[in-house]
Amino acid sequence: MTERLILHEYAQSGNCYKVRLTAALLGLPIERREYDILKGETRTPDFLARVNANGRIPVLQIGERFIPESNAACFYLAEATKLVPEDRFGRADMLRWMFFEQYSHEPNVATLRFWIAFLGDARMSEAQRAQIPARRAAGEAALALMDEHLSTRPWFVGDRLSLADIALYAYTHVAEEGGFDLSRTPHVQAWLGRTASLPNYLAMDD
Amino acid sequence: MTERLILHEYAQSGNCYKVRLTAALLGLPIERREYDILKGETRTPDFLARVNANGRIPVLQIGERFIPESNAACFYLAEATKLVPEDRFGRADMLRWMFFEQYSHEPNVATLRFWIAFLGDARMSEAQRAQIPARRAAGEAALALMDEHLSTRPWFVGDRLSLADIALYAYTHVAEEGGFDLSRTPHVQAWLGRTASLPNYLAMDD
Repeated sequence: MTERLILHEYAQSGNCYKVRLTAALLGLPIERREYDILKGETRTPDFLARVNANGRIPVLQIGERFIPESNAACFYLAEATKLVPEDRFGRADMLRWMFFEQYSHEPNVATLRFWIAFLGDARMSEAQRAQIPARRAAGEAALALMDEHLSTRPWFVGDRLSLADIALYAYTHVAEEGGFDLSRTPHVQAWLGRTASLPNYLAMDD
Repeated sequence: MTERLILHEYAQSGNCYKVRLTAALLGLPIERREYDILKGETRTPDFLARVNANGRIPVLQIGERFIPESNAACFYLAEATKLVPEDRFGRADMLRWMFFEQYSHEPNVATLRFWIAFLGDARMSEAQRAQIPARRAAGEAALALMDEHLSTRPWFVGDRLSLADIALYAYTHVAEEGGFDLSRTPHVQAWLGRTASLPNYLAMDD
């Protein structure tokens, strides 16, 4: 990696943490720029024009070019490294779990964490409150599916850590902040422990 | 591709169409197995045990192995072909738009099409009806972002068609069935026309 890497982020976002964890596990230096999403700092005209027209973080800056979407940023960093399977089926299967994460896991597990632990009861809208039961059920279903998958293998794809694990780890390891009970998914708990024990592991608060 | 390819699908799903369109553009033969999602045919014990524990289609079967998640299935078919950029940044940028599609586009544009054109007013729940305004606004924002991006280039990534275009084409070209007005996004309309004119293009109903 010869170009300078800058992560535009909000540190407590699991989506941003994924990118930092990927860089740490690969030993890649990455600069960090913090934005307060609760104050709308990713919706300013400058941010929209220069960093991401979609007004979201994380965005990985590579020299003067930008990659939004957390899992795409992780893929950029990790392509052709030990974090991506060497076989064609394994690479597609890794992406399968990364798309599962963004479609079936993050909108439920991460959103409830954000509403409950960051926005808080007083600032939650009626529309948000009304969606809690459906998102709770969908988040529990995602965690149950992960638990079943991990009941017979140590990592999501193949026999070693890949970006699939990193993508799913980010919000699962803080799911209890959103009111999810991880004691119901013991295989997920064991996998969280394996991940946190990896060499060069970086905690979310580091 | 030496192994037999079978697509487990519901033909009118844009997510399933993506996989067929990718295969067609690459000249790959693919068998089709139809499931009626309105009758719960992807939630049977056999489907959950054998095809996809997540109870969703599409699933791409490759010999005796299975890849759920539409965009992962497209990636499996197209890796190292003309539909994937040759440079590292381009590949990550392609995935960026594919994750955007699953996170910011499909849950809004595809969901409203499903509720309005397939489920219908009589079968829509109160909870679904209450979500229409927010999903309408988010879908319009996704289409506006695409329109801005396409105002200065013919395809989403680089100078030719990639999986990013195929992923976004699938539900955009039928967005009017969900009540979206594509005359507001003329660059998107022109891009839809370019895509439908490609050699080996396959329509959703074919």
